[in-house]
Amino acid sequence: MILEMIRQANDIKKLNSEQLKILADEIRQFLIEKISRTGGHLASNLGVVELTMALHLTLDFPEDKLIWDVGHQSYTHKLLTGRKDGFDQLRKYGGMSGFPKRKESDCDAFDTGHSSTSVSAGLGYVEARELLHEKHTVVSVIGDGSLTGGMAYEALNNASRLKSNFIIVLNDNNMSISENVGGMSRYLNGIRTAQAYTDIKKGVEDTLMKIPGRGERIISQIRRTKSGIKQLLVPGMFFEDMDITYLGPVDGHDIRKLVKVLKEAKRVDHAVLVHVLTKKGKGYPPAEENPAKFHGTGPFDIKTGEPTEVSTTDSYTQVFSKVLTDIAKKDDKVVAITAAMADGTGLSSFAKHFPNRFYDVGIAEEHAMTFAAGLAAGGMKPVFAVYSSFLQRAYDQTLHDVCLQNLPVVIAVDRAGLVGSDGETHQGVFDLSFLSTIPNMTVISPKNRWEMADMLRFAVDFQYPIAIRYPRGSAYEGMRDFRAPIEYGKSEILYEEEDIAVIFVGHMAELADRVRKKIKETGYSCSLVNARFVKPLDKDMLEQLAKDHSLFVTIEENVITGGFGEQVMDYVSSAKLDVHVRNIGISDDYVEHGNVEILRKEVGLDCETIVKQAISDYLMIKDR
Amino acid sequence: MILEMIRQANDIKKLNSEQLKILADEIRQFLIEKISRTGGHLASNLGVVELTMALHLTLDFPEDKLIWDVGHQSYTHKLLTGRKDGFDQLRKYGGMSGFPKRKESDCDAFDTGHSSTSVSAGLGYVEARELLHEKHTVVSVIGDGSLTGGMAYEALNNASRLKSNFIIVLNDNNMSISENVGGMSRYLNGIRTAQAYTDIKKGVEDTLMKIPGRGERIISQIRRTKSGIKQLLVPGMFFEDMDITYLGPVDGHDIRKLVKVLKEAKRVDHAVLVHVLTKKGKGYPPAEENPAKFHGTGPFDIKTGEPTEVSTTDSYTQVFSKVLTDIAKKDDKVVAITAAMADGTGLSSFAKHFPNRFYDVGIAEEHAMTFAAGLAAGGMKPVFAVYSSFLQRAYDQTLHDVCLQNLPVVIAVDRAGLVGSDGETHQGVFDLSFLSTIPNMTVISPKNRWEMADMLRFAVDFQYPIAIRYPRGSAYEGMRDFRAPIEYGKSEILYEEEDIAVIFVGHMAELADRVRKKIKETGYSCSLVNARFVKPLDKDMLEQLAKDHSLFVTIEENVITGGFGEQVMDYVSSAKLDVHVRNIGISDDYVEHGNVEILRKEVGLDCETIVKQAISDYLMIKDR
Repeated sequence: MILEMIRQANDIKKLNSEQLKILADEIRQFLIEKISRTGGHLASNLGVVELTMALHLTLDFPEDKLIWDVGHQSYTHKLLTGRKDGFDQLRKYGGMSGFPKRKESDCDAFDTGHSSTSVSAGLGYVEARELLHEKHTVVSVIGDGSLTGGMAYEALNNASRLKSNFIIVLNDNNMSISENVGGMSRYLNGIRTAQAYTDIKKGVEDTLMKIPGRGERIISQIRRTKSGIKQLLVPGMFFEDMDITYLGPVDGHDIRKLVKVLKEAKRVDHAVLVHVLTKKGKGYPPAEENPAKFHGTGPFDIKTGEPTEVSTTDSYTQVFSKVLTDIAKKDDKVVAITAAMADGTGLSSFAKHFPNRFYDVGIAEEHAMTFAAGLAAGGMKPVFAVYSSFLQRAYDQTLHDVCLQNLPVVIAVDRAGLVGSDGETHQGVFDLSFLSTIPNMTVISPKNRWEMADMLRFAVDFQYPIAIRYPRGSAYEGMRDFRAPIEYGKSEILYEEEDIAVIFVGHMAELADRVRKKIKETGYSCSLVNARFVKPLDKDMLEQLAKDHSLFVTIEENVITGGFGEQVMDYVSSAKLDVHVRNIGISDDYVEHGNVEILRKEVGLDCETIVKQAISDYLMIKDR
Repeated sequence: MILEMIRQANDIKKLNSEQLKILADEIRQFLIEKISRTGGHLASNLGVVELTMALHLTLDFPEDKLIWDVGHQSYTHKLLTGRKDGFDQLRKYGGMSGFPKRKESDCDAFDTGHSSTSVSAGLGYVEARELLHEKHTVVSVIGDGSLTGGMAYEALNNASRLKSNFIIVLNDNNMSISENVGGMSRYLNGIRTAQAYTDIKKGVEDTLMKIPGRGERIISQIRRTKSGIKQLLVPGMFFEDMDITYLGPVDGHDIRKLVKVLKEAKRVDHAVLVHVLTKKGKGYPPAEENPAKFHGTGPFDIKTGEPTEVSTTDSYTQVFSKVLTDIAKKDDKVVAITAAMADGTGLSSFAKHFPNRFYDVGIAEEHAMTFAAGLAAGGMKPVFAVYSSFLQRAYDQTLHDVCLQNLPVVIAVDRAGLVGSDGETHQGVFDLSFLSTIPNMTVISPKNRWEMADMLRFAVDFQYPIAIRYPRGSAYEGMRDFRAPIEYGKSEILYEEEDIAVIFVGHMAELADRVRKKIKETGYSCSLVNARFVKPLDKDMLEQLAKDHSLFVTIEENVITGGFGEQVMDYVSSAKLDVHVRNIGISDDYVEHGNVEILRKEVGLDCETIVKQAISDYLMIKDR
């Protein structure tokens, strides 16, 4: 196997063109086999095999800096930089990350995970190189999907002033995770139909050439005229307009052509965009046919493409999807917004039923939030479904455009809490804190699938900004008998005893229930409370519980700093309630990738640790 | 006076063209006179007098929706909608806001204050209109400066798919607050030189026309060919490429032409961009010559243009400016970044001394932060100076690109705390909370001008992410004798007594000192502690103080939720220290515009309120 010969960065340069072709096939085979077992990002990685190889043939590692936007397409890069053995433990706890990590290799120049950051980071590297009089090459690879994110445009706008080389590779597969949206996408599509384009160009030139004695002069005149007319003969005028040289489009599966254009790009003395056309899922028919399904996948059967691990219960996302569609049938003011995550957020079903009331705005969380504010100001009831970690992008817009005007926008915060194998950049463990800082905001979180439904209905009917927070994975089907109506600002007391009260947020229900049982088994009395509202805090409940409890144990899957537990602690302290508060949550650090159960144990969000802590606290209080 | 005839919206429509010209002059005179007394945004408002009048001649209020990006240019709009009398109390506490406010008038469609939101909000209004089968017109006015912000591009990208009318007015004065930057700016400049442009276009057409029997056919062929070649005959191809019809450029001071093009724009059945060329400061020579100075101005002498209120002491911004320039002289790895606020942040001096190490990235906080991360990863020491409320835009980038990689970026958080007359959207009262949620972040705040210098030096030498927070206005010159070296994580005890300990953050020093004096006058013993580090918390100090104090009073100009005081309270509670904590700060609400001293009194950040509270707390503790 040729792949066996690639033991470290730059080894690929020893191969001849015949071997390179075989290597591409072997890499695809390797990725399909490994990912079919571990799960991971497949379609995007299959799309950039040749592009990555061409980059490695052109660049020197680790001197040169290669920055992958989002980063989930960096598997071939990992293979070519000596990390082949890591794939058995890909995205497992303690194993190799699914994203570039500076800690993992000096060939990873910048940690990514969220969209549209690579050009900004690359520009930083370029400016540093110039100031330090270094000589290396800096390349940022950005997808056409990431190009719908505003900060990519901010960066391009700045790249235009560069007076030294900076290569931006536009990996254009005509998709985000789902199909791409917007004017830019259509624009690129126009260029993609390269043949037609060339024909037109050639047609015009030919027509002009036919004018005896004049045609050539006109063409050269047109070519000379700087702006405005260049478009006639140059595709990619959009970028040229920003003073970024445009090269392409080039076939992203032709190594020879790729190397040629990259070498050309290295000679440019300012910013240059290389437009590369790739096919998501390339080489694996099920992924070619359905790239969205194979964007991030669990283990699957290579022959059929079908998942080998199928959940028998609905996820919270599925419950959200069904209930929102149901609500929208009866209320035609309900509209739904996603930032390029129609499948992930479950809104694709809503989109099918109500295409006119559904908006996929591209990877543009900032716009999405203010757009929602505009819709609400205009009389609609917008629901913006977004992953917790991507909502971080819209903090200012939530604070400034939604909550300042107190507009009825529902933020459906999906993938809240620990998400597992995607790791640091995708853990949704800050939302309770940053949302709680915002005036006029209400934050709720359901304990199980039925409460998810009830809370969503409550949220849509609510007349002010509200966020409903739920995790990745199966919706809890326990506690079905507890279904008191949702009342603004009111928690739900599930079991009322004395001494110790466990107060949990949302999907911590199952764990909290086990904690309570264990505490009782150990011989102590214990109440169980579902917070329901993280903001506003149910102060009456705290006052009431303080009467016959001496210890509150709060449990939330969020950083402790600024989270629910701290708010309980602050109220208890300022109201001088005679009760001790123990906050269980995530300490002030990033949480890496791995199985969620393992991660919970790691951060102390497991039954054993919590019970031990609670009983030790309780005994200490009693001792005083 | 014609202006007297304008008592409410739509009154302007009764005027003839001669009267309109006079009105424009009267409005300018009115604005200059009023703002010379109250202070406010002058240059931007003088620039859009005719544009606003033309919009009011074309639109019906309040049915039609007009959204002003940023909103500080809405003075003429306020005048034309019956708010003339408000100008005497412009930006004063209880008086008229300097920004559009839905609460203030039903002719204000959307509250703004931060940049680049208007197209998103307008799109929301348009979609709501279509779904509700309404008929009004929606117009978003956006400056060319705001167009450097990524979310404007995200919105344009989405506007392209509209199948109904949406008018985007590009108010192009070739400036942000300072001069504009980037490729887009140069592109617009190209169009601005309209005459040259038309000449080229005409030249090509003429050349082609000279071809007997063929020229016309070629021109029509070129005209017909949709994309790529249209640029030949159409300016604004950049927007046309996004399927947004481009109209213009049009003289923004010619009411007749403006009305004509706006009427034309109303007939378009999708998104249309009207490119309007205006001059910032138009009609007032000092503002025309120095629009940046007259962007936001204090009271000034109309004759000379000189400010009538001059501070004799340096502001924190000036101290920052001087010290950073000094540091950079000795350390050539120091680079500075601003998001279109070179003057406001004091970086213009740095820019003069080190043009190669200074970056104005446009109104692009997201890019700025990740660009800083890239610079740091590449070996530099970037300092990003940014207003607290605009830093909200870069929460995700701080968390994800700077702190996750633990990169040595210095965030100089200017305008932290209450800023006064700009109001809700500009108060910098959330940063301590949202920065504290971020792992690996260090947050410091200086008590006076000397500590500002010391802390800035400490921050630049620090090897990890660090934010230094300071307010608008004069740097405190008291407490000069207290200048212990800055030590990581260590607070500074200024006066050590017993019973009550006042612990303050940064510029609350002066107030805290008065509070302590007053408490002592009332007959109690009181210590005074400068927190210095908001994150990490100085736990040793708290432990030590808890020994002989029974009350901690924390003072910070930030929301209490998630702020410094809550962190003190949480530590005291979890460490079971025997001391009561009282948090003084801003409660969970937005703070409107007005004089900072009045606002402080309003929110309870004044000596009297704090002392009363502290003594009452103390007596209650002693009573137990």
